[in-house]
Amino acid sequence: MQIHRTLHTGFTVSNLERSLAFYRGMLGMEVVAQQVGSAEYLSKVTGFPGVRLNMAFVKVPGEDDHVLELLEYVSHPGEPTPHETNRPGNGHLCFVVDDLSAWYHELVARGVPFVSEPTLITAGVNRGAMAVYLRDPDGFTIELYQPASRRETAGPEART
Amino acid sequence: MQIHRTLHTGFTVSNLERSLAFYRGMLGMEVVAQQVGSAEYLSKVTGFPGVRLNMAFVKVPGEDDHVLELLEYVSHPGEPTPHETNRPGNGHLCFVVDDLSAWYHELVARGVPFVSEPTLITAGVNRGAMAVYLRDPDGFTIELYQPASRRETAGPEART
Repeated sequence: MQIHRTLHTGFTVSNLERSLAFYRGMLGMEVVAQQVGSAEYLSKVTGFPGVRLNMAFVKVPGEDDHVLELLEYVSHPGEPTPHETNRPGNGHLCFVVDDLSAWYHELVARGVPFVSEPTLITAGVNRGAMAVYLRDPDGFTIELYQPASRRETAGPEART
Repeated sequence: MQIHRTLHTGFTVSNLERSLAFYRGMLGMEVVAQQVGSAEYLSKVTGFPGVRLNMAFVKVPGEDDHVLELLEYVSHPGEPTPHETNRPGNGHLCFVVDDLSAWYHELVARGVPFVSEPTLITAGVNRGAMAVYLRDPDGFTIELYQPASRRETAGPEART
């Protein structure tokens, strides 16, 4: 009896179209499937009787083994949770990129809020990489991460 | 400029040892690395000056491409966020298992709170699978999912 693999990470969003504009339009992810769900099994799994969900499954192009599930609770919209990452129960999702500096400048120009500028990891198991936190349209934290091994192909400022 | 792949999902936890007892001791995940972080870069990335983190990286045995990062903000413990999955900003993480019924009975016997019993997915792209939501020690939602393709080998009814 053991876990076979990780299937997906899910976020609850307040507006699926707005989230798709971010994950597809800004981060370049692909929509694998999109559906409205209101079958009885969803009420049972989620614990919300009569639930109706707008759902989209998105993935990194070329990556087949991990999906991001975006769920809008149309019938039971809840209050947003505070997004600070020091609060137990909050999560984040981390994507590997080749050129963090270019991503940072592009997304800042498009109005995406970042916690900091791209930052060199100076200690620990990820030493030599660069990372940054940003917030999605619901305040969910996304980390963009450029491994040390990929820094040779990145912008000049990332090499210093 | 495109995302290369998904690296990890991170959860903020209130007590790393308690969370490891759950993810390692109950779900059978492996600890890849464990470290205490207080370097300056962590303050910058997280936005918490002088932050000190207890961190563990755990993974599904045999799976090399997705890590779960558990982060305890020792220096800046925040208030827990409400865990209901209808709140925008909340997330969940889904694992594939072979025998959902066995997992359910084992974890219930060990006191893990579930939202429902294992439930057959009757519609949509995952039709024929079974799924259930449970809560980790901080109330973070974990989904266990048994694909339709794995149901032949699962469940006591299939074995007897």
